[in-house]
Amino acid sequence: MKYPNSFEELIESLKKLPGIGPKSAERMAYQILDMSEYDVKEFADSLVKAKQNIHHCSVCGHMTENDVCEICESPYRDHSTICVVQSSKDVFAIEKARDYSGVYHVLHGVISPLNGVGPQDLNIPSLIQRIEKEGIKEIILATNPTTEGETTALYLSKILANKPVVVTRIAYGVPMGANLDYTDEYTILKALEGRRQYKK
Amino acid sequence: MKYPNSFEELIESLKKLPGIGPKSAERMAYQILDMSEYDVKEFADSLVKAKQNIHHCSVCGHMTENDVCEICESPYRDHSTICVVQSSKDVFAIEKARDYSGVYHVLHGVISPLNGVGPQDLNIPSLIQRIEKEGIKEIILATNPTTEGETTALYLSKILANKPVVVTRIAYGVPMGANLDYTDEYTILKALEGRRQYKK
Repeated sequence: MKYPNSFEELIESLKKLPGIGPKSAERMAYQILDMSEYDVKEFADSLVKAKQNIHHCSVCGHMTENDVCEICESPYRDHSTICVVQSSKDVFAIEKARDYSGVYHVLHGVISPLNGVGPQDLNIPSLIQRIEKEGIKEIILATNPTTEGETTALYLSKILANKPVVVTRIAYGVPMGANLDYTDEYTILKALEGRRQYKK
Repeated sequence: MKYPNSFEELIESLKKLPGIGPKSAERMAYQILDMSEYDVKEFADSLVKAKQNIHHCSVCGHMTENDVCEICESPYRDHSTICVVQSSKDVFAIEKARDYSGVYHVLHGVISPLNGVGPQDLNIPSLIQRIEKEGIKEIILATNPTTEGETTALYLSKILANKPVVVTRIAYGVPMGANLDYTDEYTILKALEGRRQYKK
C-alpha cells in the first residue's frame, strides 16, 4: 500500500536534508501532519525567508541579511588581519573561541579536483582585491587540515607570495582534551614538529 | 556572535522536528541555504501541501487525500473485519505484512491519563457506529502492547462486550528473529502462556 501522494512528496523533500534517511524522514513527516496548520505554514515560511534574506557579505562573503556583514562593519575589529575560511560555519566556530579580533574572508569551498572545484570557483578574486586596496598586514589561512583544505591553503600561499602581506597557517597539533593514545600518528607527528619552547 | 535572524528562526523551526537537536538543526539549516531557491520553495510547498491535502478518512480515520481512503473503498477487502490501531503508521505497518485483508479503524491515540487523554478524545464513537451499521463480524484490537495500549484495548473490549461481534486481541510473544536470552521475562511469560499445540 502506498502513502498518499503529498505525503510521499513530503518524505522525499525531507530525505534531501543531511543525515536524514528514509525512516527518519517518515517519522518527521508524521510529526509534521500532527502539527497545526499554522505551525506548518510558519515552518514553510522560515525556509523560504531564510533562503531569500540571507546572502553573502559583499566584502568578505560571510552570511548576512545586510549588504555588509556585522564583522566587516564593526569599528572594533582589526581590519588589517584577514582570516580565510572555507565556509560561514567556520566563521561562527572561530567567533565562539572569543579571541580573534580580525576580520574574515569566506571562500565558499575548497579546491577539489574530484568534485570538479578549481580555484576559479572560489571567492578568491575579491580576497586579492582586498589585499591590494585595504592595507592588509596578515592573511591567516584557516582552511581545514584535510587534503583539500591543505591544497587550497598551499595554492593561496603561492598566489599571495608576491603580495606585501604576511601569510600564516593555523597550527596543527593534538586537540585540547584529546588522549594521545587515541590520536592518529600523523597528528602526533605534526604536534611534535610544531612543538614550542616554554618561556623562561 | 549571533546568527542572522532568519537563519536563527529556521534553526528554531527545524528543532521542532523529532530527533533533531540544536547541532543537527544547524547542519540542516546550512544545507538548506546551499539549496537552490527553487528547491527550497518546493520543499516549503511540500510541507504546506501535505498538511492541507491529507486528512482523516471519514469512515476509518486513516490518512487520505480523498474523502474515503483506498482501503475503505476497495471491493477486494473484507469489510466485516475491523482492525483497530492507534495511528495511521500502524495501518502501513500491518499492510506491509501483506496478509490482512480486512479493514481498519484508526483511534488517533491511546488512553493516557498522564497525558490527559481519555476515551472521549479518541475516534471511538464512529467505531461503535460502524459496528451497529455495517454488519461487522470481528474486531481485532491491535493497539501497542504497552501499558497505554493495553488499557485502551481493555477499555474497548469492555464497551464492545454487549455488541454482536467477536472481539480479539493480537498475540503477544517472542518477535521473529529474536534471541530468547535478550528477550525480557514478561514477553517470555506471555509467549509461554500463549503457546499453541502443533497439529498432528
